[in-house]
Amino acid sequence: MISRQSAIQIIQDTVKPTTEIDTVGLFESYGRTLAENIISDIDIPPFNRVTMDGYAVVSSDGPGLYSVIEDIPAGKFPTSVVEPGSVSKVMTGAPLPDGADAVIQVEKTGGFVNVGQSAQINEKIRKGQNISSTGEDVNKGDLVIKSGAYIRSAEISVLASMGYDPVKCYRNPSVAILATGDELVAPSQKPGPGQIRNSNGYSMFAQTYSLMLDPISLGVGQDNENDLRDKIERGATHDFLLVSGGVSAGDRDFVPGILRDVGYDLLFHKVNIKPGKPITFGVSNNGRYVFGVPGNPVSSMVAFELFIKPAIRWFSRAPVADSLELEATLLNEFKRKNASREEFRPALIKWENGRFTAELIQYHGSGHFAAMTKANGIVRVDPEVDYLAKDQKVTGKLFSEFYLPIDKA
Amino acid sequence: MISRQSAIQIIQDTVKPTTEIDTVGLFESYGRTLAENIISDIDIPPFNRVTMDGYAVVSSDGPGLYSVIEDIPAGKFPTSVVEPGSVSKVMTGAPLPDGADAVIQVEKTGGFVNVGQSAQINEKIRKGQNISSTGEDVNKGDLVIKSGAYIRSAEISVLASMGYDPVKCYRNPSVAILATGDELVAPSQKPGPGQIRNSNGYSMFAQTYSLMLDPISLGVGQDNENDLRDKIERGATHDFLLVSGGVSAGDRDFVPGILRDVGYDLLFHKVNIKPGKPITFGVSNNGRYVFGVPGNPVSSMVAFELFIKPAIRWFSRAPVADSLELEATLLNEFKRKNASREEFRPALIKWENGRFTAELIQYHGSGHFAAMTKANGIVRVDPEVDYLAKDQKVTGKLFSEFYLPIDKA
Repeated sequence: MISRQSAIQIIQDTVKPTTEIDTVGLFESYGRTLAENIISDIDIPPFNRVTMDGYAVVSSDGPGLYSVIEDIPAGKFPTSVVEPGSVSKVMTGAPLPDGADAVIQVEKTGGFVNVGQSAQINEKIRKGQNISSTGEDVNKGDLVIKSGAYIRSAEISVLASMGYDPVKCYRNPSVAILATGDELVAPSQKPGPGQIRNSNGYSMFAQTYSLMLDPISLGVGQDNENDLRDKIERGATHDFLLVSGGVSAGDRDFVPGILRDVGYDLLFHKVNIKPGKPITFGVSNNGRYVFGVPGNPVSSMVAFELFIKPAIRWFSRAPVADSLELEATLLNEFKRKNASREEFRPALIKWENGRFTAELIQYHGSGHFAAMTKANGIVRVDPEVDYLAKDQKVTGKLFSEFYLPIDKA
Repeated sequence: MISRQSAIQIIQDTVKPTTEIDTVGLFESYGRTLAENIISDIDIPPFNRVTMDGYAVVSSDGPGLYSVIEDIPAGKFPTSVVEPGSVSKVMTGAPLPDGADAVIQVEKTGGFVNVGQSAQINEKIRKGQNISSTGEDVNKGDLVIKSGAYIRSAEISVLASMGYDPVKCYRNPSVAILATGDELVAPSQKPGPGQIRNSNGYSMFAQTYSLMLDPISLGVGQDNENDLRDKIERGATHDFLLVSGGVSAGDRDFVPGILRDVGYDLLFHKVNIKPGKPITFGVSNNGRYVFGVPGNPVSSMVAFELFIKPAIRWFSRAPVADSLELEATLLNEFKRKNASREEFRPALIKWENGRFTAELIQYHGSGHFAAMTKANGIVRVDPEVDYLAKDQKVTGKLFSEFYLPIDKA
């Protein structure tokens, strides 16, 4: 049985970052990985830009009454030169007229008057005030964002300003999700004797969706070989196939055999962690990947955070970590009898008084998924460690979809 | 001019959390606010559930050869009682047969054999081992998630297990976005003299989208009264109208007047922060809200984080904070001449060596939006403070869409 670190290494060595590029509209690029260098085709600002509503002046003129020679709203290019003794009315965003070397805000004047009238200037203003110079922020030809960046709102703003609509992004993987087990029924059904509702198919769908992807649900594969084979063959046409259940040692666990038949080379079957030990990872010779995760919901959720999410991000060349690896002060003690595995416990992690605290959630084991609704992350217990004391430092991880509720009041 | 705290108080006092409820499919409920208590209609596990593949045994029997009387996969209900001297083959997820009080994992036996044959049991196992008892995690009738919870993957898992498909959620607000300014052209166009590309319309769209909402873009409103009035009237049919530009003191800034004409009561116009001072907030008598933000991109982005995001979350009764208010060690000093306003500076915030560090990004002012692509949060400079020393503690905020890049290598 391999360690978590070895499993992650195998995944890193196996998953090939895509070289395929999509050209997508700017609104659709959010949350994707940029696949081109963003080079500015303009100076920003593109002209000496007025940053306050007021009058463009010759700064040496000082207070007094000055003739207004032009009215320059944003979007209009000035046509008159401001000579000493004259001013032009300017709005925020407008280009500074030639001759002027500063802008006095309207609040420091007698107010706006029409062209041809005289404006009352109340103060002397320093040269360069309330002006953004041409190219002050970005020069034409500058490399502003490197290929490989993750596209957030700030990047969208830059892409829009520099004319990158559409924009080149690395291809996102397609992800198919299959829940297996004869005992599973749909959430809308009432389970009969021996049955439970399918929850993993839904939680893995949500976890994938939280990565800004649109997964495909293959529904529930029953534990008979033909149905499973059919669904797995369909799943194998996707970049990632995520299968829950059917991967432990049971003799009806057909999944590993079918995965091999369909062309996956299975690289590991078990990882020395709790929950989530019987996790399978494989790759096909056409570069498609499969994860098999245990059928219990907490194992499936933790396996997604630890292994599947990084794999999907590597595929699309996105930065891997969006959840913190952090050090927290433990609020309640922890004991365990069997310390052979690395263990992850659901925790509520908070930032308070200048430090992270982690409160372990009451948790009965990997089937106890209701506990996860009280948690926003996990705390790690290292192998061989059977006791964690209250107030000791522990390593935690916030889920990427964590929240820290703060009351409105 | 009011403080940020007063502005937030006015927003809190004004925005009414919705009482309208949507009934949506489980896949669509992700990222929404739950509008019903989730009560379990079943025990979880619904039966004494086997947690390992192996044999169901009478624990007092101990090692030896035992007759296999039944084969119980997951999803099948047992029909035979396990008497002392007999065992049943059981798979993970299956119900424990009557008579048995423990499960021995297959690895501690001679392996699986067929019904009628004898199984080799190699170890004595304690009563209750490898069994999850009926109702151990949840009892029928338990309140498992309270109305008002934010729906993440963990909640989706519980909703699926308890049959809440569809599920009741509070209505999400509709959000319309309008960029204003004669100087704006579409990203795909090359700006002429005096023109710039519309970026705020795009970044506010992305910021709204990051809240799992689908905003409506109203495009660009030109600085003439009729076009603006037409677009603002359309925007006023949405719960939130976000207008960028046109809200400062310029005499062509028709926006505040039109907002009033359309029925908005404007509650504030300026907040004592930098960037983002000329921010407008209003409410109509039919309970719709408007924000006007400055036309420069950094102001618009910061105003969204500080004011618009909390307002949208209050509307939909979601937990407000998903980005941290944290204390960080400043990596570079900061000086400013005019310390009258509370200021927010773009920063790269990292968790390293057991503490947050904040590196202020080189930043020329509120038009310098390219700086935001280097940042994952902001650092606050309090009013009256004109100097922050290297290594001193500062207050920061991570953007909700922050990332902490970690190299694959």
